[in-house]
Amino acid sequence: MSNALRLQPSWVIPIRPENTIHLDFDLIICDGVIVDLLPRQAANDRYGDVSAIDLTGEVVLPGLINCHGHAAMTLLRGYADDHSLMAWLEDHIWPVEAKLVSPSFVHAGAWLAAAESLSRGTTCCADSYFFPQATAEAMGMTGIRSQITTPVIQFPNAWASTEEDHIAQSLVFFDWAATQPRLTVGFAPHAAYSLSDQGFKRIRQLALANDLPVHLHLHESNDEMIRHAALYQCRPIDRMRRLEMFDTRLQTVHMTQLLDEEISWLKLTKTPVVHCPESNMKLASGICPIDQLRAEGVDVALGTDGAASNNDLDLFQEMRTAALLAKVATGAPEALSAEQALYMATMGGAQYLGLDHLIGSLEIGKQADVISVRLSDIQTQPVYHPVSQLVYAVTGHNVTHTFVEGELLYHNGDFNRFDVGELRSQVSQWQARIGALI
Amino acid sequence: MSNALRLQPSWVIPIRPENTIHLDFDLIICDGVIVDLLPRQAANDRYGDVSAIDLTGEVVLPGLINCHGHAAMTLLRGYADDHSLMAWLEDHIWPVEAKLVSPSFVHAGAWLAAAESLSRGTTCCADSYFFPQATAEAMGMTGIRSQITTPVIQFPNAWASTEEDHIAQSLVFFDWAATQPRLTVGFAPHAAYSLSDQGFKRIRQLALANDLPVHLHLHESNDEMIRHAALYQCRPIDRMRRLEMFDTRLQTVHMTQLLDEEISWLKLTKTPVVHCPESNMKLASGICPIDQLRAEGVDVALGTDGAASNNDLDLFQEMRTAALLAKVATGAPEALSAEQALYMATMGGAQYLGLDHLIGSLEIGKQADVISVRLSDIQTQPVYHPVSQLVYAVTGHNVTHTFVEGELLYHNGDFNRFDVGELRSQVSQWQARIGALI
Repeated sequence: MSNALRLQPSWVIPIRPENTIHLDFDLIICDGVIVDLLPRQAANDRYGDVSAIDLTGEVVLPGLINCHGHAAMTLLRGYADDHSLMAWLEDHIWPVEAKLVSPSFVHAGAWLAAAESLSRGTTCCADSYFFPQATAEAMGMTGIRSQITTPVIQFPNAWASTEEDHIAQSLVFFDWAATQPRLTVGFAPHAAYSLSDQGFKRIRQLALANDLPVHLHLHESNDEMIRHAALYQCRPIDRMRRLEMFDTRLQTVHMTQLLDEEISWLKLTKTPVVHCPESNMKLASGICPIDQLRAEGVDVALGTDGAASNNDLDLFQEMRTAALLAKVATGAPEALSAEQALYMATMGGAQYLGLDHLIGSLEIGKQADVISVRLSDIQTQPVYHPVSQLVYAVTGHNVTHTFVEGELLYHNGDFNRFDVGELRSQVSQWQARIGALI
Repeated sequence: MSNALRLQPSWVIPIRPENTIHLDFDLIICDGVIVDLLPRQAANDRYGDVSAIDLTGEVVLPGLINCHGHAAMTLLRGYADDHSLMAWLEDHIWPVEAKLVSPSFVHAGAWLAAAESLSRGTTCCADSYFFPQATAEAMGMTGIRSQITTPVIQFPNAWASTEEDHIAQSLVFFDWAATQPRLTVGFAPHAAYSLSDQGFKRIRQLALANDLPVHLHLHESNDEMIRHAALYQCRPIDRMRRLEMFDTRLQTVHMTQLLDEEISWLKLTKTPVVHCPESNMKLASGICPIDQLRAEGVDVALGTDGAASNNDLDLFQEMRTAALLAKVATGAPEALSAEQALYMATMGGAQYLGLDHLIGSLEIGKQADVISVRLSDIQTQPVYHPVSQLVYAVTGHNVTHTFVEGELLYHNGDFNRFDVGELRSQVSQWQARIGALI
């Protein structure tokens, strides 16, 4: 097996079957696919000729899946903090975007985001931003897997003018994207208040005809509820029901404002939710009732949102925040255990994106999207439960190897596909331009 | 100046004066003390002969101050997660402690905690645990500054039996500690419900006579309120008022359950509060109203609590959690800005410990407890506001240098005072003994 590789960590956490930790197992990868997972001794017999990577003191697990982000906005990391969502958008983010957003801005920001993500153990990310082809090109260059959904909004911007124009541009992008590896696409209507009924109807029609997901900020904050009610005299979910948007592969984002009957509706329609706890906390948007959603059988995933409202793309920290927030929000320290948080960031993410047949767990036949995480640092000693360590004591800094489709893309600070000096240079130029606007 | 050193970072954040960032300044240290802080060009003229450390791309700031912890419990990191405070203590932590706590357990755990703390930019930590001399010896060996307060509790344990015995052992420790450098001491009555009136009275008398702080878990959770009410038919603060404990240099810990009039009382009596957001979230204890406390003029500091309920000792992550939690808890994204969170972890901590004449800011004449933090990694690029970066994008992993009293104790993974191999070996032995109890 000339294209094969043996990973030899201290622990393997396959995610499926659940609650399983293999001690001293080898994970065998060949031609981008997981082909075996077996005890080291058996691997020595069967795969003795396969080149091996010694990962003693490390844990191997599926790459993490970030189900909500705006990669280009990584260029705005720390540009404007400690503001409310609407003030942040209207007084800070949107004015900069109006001045500077272009394919080269998006390409540089998405490159930075993909590099950070890979270095922190994320192998797949969902993204929505203007100039989606620039995002796709940057991400494709780094080798990360992605779902890129195209923004649709009533307001004009550098990428498109009207709703119809956004949709037309989306179709052009989808055509281009069809030949790209590791890429899936869909629509990202911005929010219920910022699209007309007509816009949603057209998106629904195209999404159903082409089996595309629809990725939608929904019930993000109380502000959104008020704004939508002023325009449409109802809650966003009710309007989305009336417009039959739940017939599509709807991917809801945020969901901090939920009634019990709305949770039942999500369950009934098998609509998943991506939880972005750090962004929701930082913008004081509210708290998604993640533990209740899980208990009711709604699929839940995890996202960082953009680095401008986080301010990192580290899903390890996001898992921890999700677990801690669920506990304090419910008053129950049993809420969202470490195992459940890790599931959200792996299989939960794969299910959310409709990619659970390909990624999200270390099962034979799945894509080898795999990471290795060092638990041997004194700051993560002692180790009683590797999953506890991953969620409560590790950050993305502990990631040593990141593979996508069996390809080693990141290893201990180095990226294999690109020149990090060129990335730094581009970011530095954008920092100067953006900083001049402050 | 033969004992002098020039630090040459891109930014210096002195904390005092507030809201100040110096670009291209040098910090001059001599004989353990900050002697100058001036523009690089002026430093070249005046201190050209002083040995310099190039810290381009880094920010120099005061060492962080961790105002609440139980260092020895670092050996129980990840031992029992996702349990309520009382179940966690009674079913998991206390049984292990009853079996294993000894001077050697405490020494190993405190050594591990001090090493982690120094590596994450903490130069001073407040600690309370059995066998305080073992903690002090371990911390003293690493060079970290500490306040070690002695536990007093009605329940017998390996260190002491009765309340009086705890107090007697405390006095023995205080005598020993008087000659130790970088160490201050005090009493740590465990909680209102776990000491008698007589115990508090004796502590009050000794604390006042010897000008010692009294470090007290107070209003940590609703459970504590119920437990105390069952025993004493009142809220803990009311009993502490009756016992005149606020006459001492009382250091309150946690304070998640507070009435408005109790906040007024804290202000009136100039009683500081240490906020431990991650531990409070993980144990679902509640949320300390830190933004309201600040607004009312109560001094607030930051703590990690023990690694068993956190599960790290990284004050950078704690600052971020404090800021995010304050925003979502109040519904105001302006709550606890990055600057305010950083103040809590530096000057706020120094004030809490009564050490603000010595540490907490980079002012001439203060002790050179100083850290340098790398902002040049792509994961922390671009940099518009260094303070935003420190609170929202950095973790303790970005710390490159940690000085206490001008002595370089940690530098890029290496500790200057001890053999990390011996620390690893001890931790590994304890892991085997503790793990065998699971």
